[in-house]
Amino acid sequence: MTETTRQPCDLLIEAGWVVPVNPHGVVLVDHAVVVSGDRIVALLPLAEARERFAPAQTVSRPDSVLIPGLVNGHTHNPMTLMRGVADDLSLMPWLHEHVWPIEGAVMSPEFVADGVELAVAEMLRGGTTCCNESYFFPDAQAATYRRLGFRARVGLPVIEFPSAWAASTAEYFDKGLEVYDNYRSDPLVSLSFAPHAPYTVSDESFERIRMLAEQLDLPVHVHVHETAQEIADSLKQYGQRPIARLDRLGVVNERLIAVHMTQLIDAEIALCAERGVSVLHCPQSNLKLASGFSPVEKLRRAGVNLGLGTDGCASNNDLDMFDEMRTAALLAKGVAMDATALDAASALRIATLGSAKALGLDEHIGSIEVGKQADLTLIAMDALETQPMYNAISHLVYATGRHQVSDVWIAGQRKLADRELVGIDVDALRAKTRQWQQRIAAIGNKP
Amino acid sequence: MTETTRQPCDLLIEAGWVVPVNPHGVVLVDHAVVVSGDRIVALLPLAEARERFAPAQTVSRPDSVLIPGLVNGHTHNPMTLMRGVADDLSLMPWLHEHVWPIEGAVMSPEFVADGVELAVAEMLRGGTTCCNESYFFPDAQAATYRRLGFRARVGLPVIEFPSAWAASTAEYFDKGLEVYDNYRSDPLVSLSFAPHAPYTVSDESFERIRMLAEQLDLPVHVHVHETAQEIADSLKQYGQRPIARLDRLGVVNERLIAVHMTQLIDAEIALCAERGVSVLHCPQSNLKLASGFSPVEKLRRAGVNLGLGTDGCASNNDLDMFDEMRTAALLAKGVAMDATALDAASALRIATLGSAKALGLDEHIGSIEVGKQADLTLIAMDALETQPMYNAISHLVYATGRHQVSDVWIAGQRKLADRELVGIDVDALRAKTRQWQQRIAAIGNKP
Repeated sequence: MTETTRQPCDLLIEAGWVVPVNPHGVVLVDHAVVVSGDRIVALLPLAEARERFAPAQTVSRPDSVLIPGLVNGHTHNPMTLMRGVADDLSLMPWLHEHVWPIEGAVMSPEFVADGVELAVAEMLRGGTTCCNESYFFPDAQAATYRRLGFRARVGLPVIEFPSAWAASTAEYFDKGLEVYDNYRSDPLVSLSFAPHAPYTVSDESFERIRMLAEQLDLPVHVHVHETAQEIADSLKQYGQRPIARLDRLGVVNERLIAVHMTQLIDAEIALCAERGVSVLHCPQSNLKLASGFSPVEKLRRAGVNLGLGTDGCASNNDLDMFDEMRTAALLAKGVAMDATALDAASALRIATLGSAKALGLDEHIGSIEVGKQADLTLIAMDALETQPMYNAISHLVYATGRHQVSDVWIAGQRKLADRELVGIDVDALRAKTRQWQQRIAAIGNKP
Repeated sequence: MTETTRQPCDLLIEAGWVVPVNPHGVVLVDHAVVVSGDRIVALLPLAEARERFAPAQTVSRPDSVLIPGLVNGHTHNPMTLMRGVADDLSLMPWLHEHVWPIEGAVMSPEFVADGVELAVAEMLRGGTTCCNESYFFPDAQAATYRRLGFRARVGLPVIEFPSAWAASTAEYFDKGLEVYDNYRSDPLVSLSFAPHAPYTVSDESFERIRMLAEQLDLPVHVHVHETAQEIADSLKQYGQRPIARLDRLGVVNERLIAVHMTQLIDAEIALCAERGVSVLHCPQSNLKLASGFSPVEKLRRAGVNLGLGTDGCASNNDLDMFDEMRTAALLAKGVAMDATALDAASALRIATLGSAKALGLDEHIGSIEVGKQADLTLIAMDALETQPMYNAISHLVYATGRHQVSDVWIAGQRKLADRELVGIDVDALRAKTRQWQQRIAAIGNKP
């Protein structure tokens, strides 16, 4: 075949193994992904790719696995600046004596922007290309994700308490809708409603969110059924379990991203399956805060879509989706008392396509398929720690460390190149982080 | 102070933070450890160390944390060559259809030696300086650990089944005692008795082990109370739970390293505390095989010594003690339904001094104390993933990846220098690993 017949493209990524996630459980040996603009235009055997395409750039990694970028389905990224500030505490002393006093002192657009930048750096270095955010100052978050070229669903927070972001429930809605207007056509940054939790948001607010979410076609991102206490309190205050109450308020549907869900009776699992609710699993956070065990294998077998998230760095203490996949796969087996529960391919799926579906973005991301966005992660498998290798998917979940991620693309743009961050000034980021550390440590040290 | 008054020493390690493990929970800022020969001769503030000592070599790491080398309390290191060969299976199909057929085909001194070498490379790169081994061909294991200068308790296997190592119970004892004789005065390699499990070892063998272990002053390393099935089977066969049976046979004492222990009633926890038994916790293995949840917080509060281990790479699938500490600390909270359970300092302790005590080596290793062996691990904390840092111990357990380990010493000898393995031919190791992979994959592919 002559040069003139080869089709021009922007990028050819050649890998020893490609795991497209869809179809499920498949490992393609010696394959290539062809990218033009922000999209995947072909996935095919290496030799065929070389024959058919004339790429502007080729990245060739015979010892690496290419996967769709990981989708972190639940984060509070500004809290990355509070990584490890308080551990091994029950929820109430952790919140009242540590998290809230610090947040009260530092909460600002600058804190949010700097925390998000540190988180983006960490996520990229760990193979994550998209996150689902829930925090204050969504305007500062969205601006930072846009500036850094990172894909995110930014939550518009609603909570019945004043904060530095909004003084009243009405202001949460007004300011949120303004952020929505500014990003409604952004290619990378999209929005969701993020009512904090059933115990901090009123019936009226949930009803308004239901209506607006439908009008604007946005997901609703909520912490729900996180602890047994939450259920008991809801029964006392509303005479209903939180999910029953949310159902009465009309938000138990395919828009709902129900985060945590450790406390579930069988009827609730069936309801979630029937309504197309996505359950966003955060196994390390649930363990660390002793919230309970989410019945993920039961949910999976009932046909409920599952996503995976790390939660914030004040309660995890990292944004490591490889470690989170491993914990999810291991814990599901322990909880189900079944070693076949949440097998490696399913763990990888919830960390990619499952999270993407929860975010309402599965038509665009979450798997390596022609026509989808080129959100891609290359992982080097030649480390001694992943030798020998019998099965690439097993290694991704049970043996890989996130530092083996070498390259990351978002919408066809290279964001990590041979472990180097592109477009982030790491020295400046370190300096900013150090300043926040000093300021936050000083608050923590106060009596 | 003049040069002549400074005391000569072999090595001065300066670190931004030193976590000695004993005393518990302490972080020493800007401290140094002084090493002469194979021992720690001082631990003191940096400035004072520079004044008092004239080292032949100085390693200065202001951004690093120095800890005692991690002690992996339960391994089957030759199985590193079977990393990820079969996952997501219940114990019986995993053993019958995968592990045993492969072992039957490859078991040999060469397989054992090559697997141990790969494991040593992985352990050193992950900050581990000592392991507690249970596998066949202890002679090949011991020779490899000695050759590589790695500290190990090598188990002398006893099992009532023939293997390539020994054809009869008598031969297991005879060959084991011969290995013991060859290593009785080795500075790094020591032995234990390693009866496989209550369900594979007879009363007579346990009684003989009890007698020999006392005579030779060796620990007894056993898988025990790993699954509910084991308890049910023991009740049926012996009319006793395994621990009651072992107690009748005289091995429930301070020599016993009881691995797994997921099934425990309160009286058994009290018995372990009273007798000085060490419980060796393998949280990832217990999850992956759906064996059950070990009540580690109950054990800890009862005063039982706890150690930590990864188990073998065919069921984990790595030798990552950082990940294992994190899983232990997180899972203990979930199981105890208490976020204060197994705090970070306690998780680090079980991975160092706790395991050392289980192995009967706590007078020599497991903490940074004057007079102890210089088994030391340096971890770089300047990675973005461990920024900011408010508490070094929190980060070691909840945020550090093992790839942040930069340097490792065993008995004063540097085994990892700036991430480079000392004394291991990595290219040759890769080539050998590749050969075993091809051989093992061919077995796995047979119908």
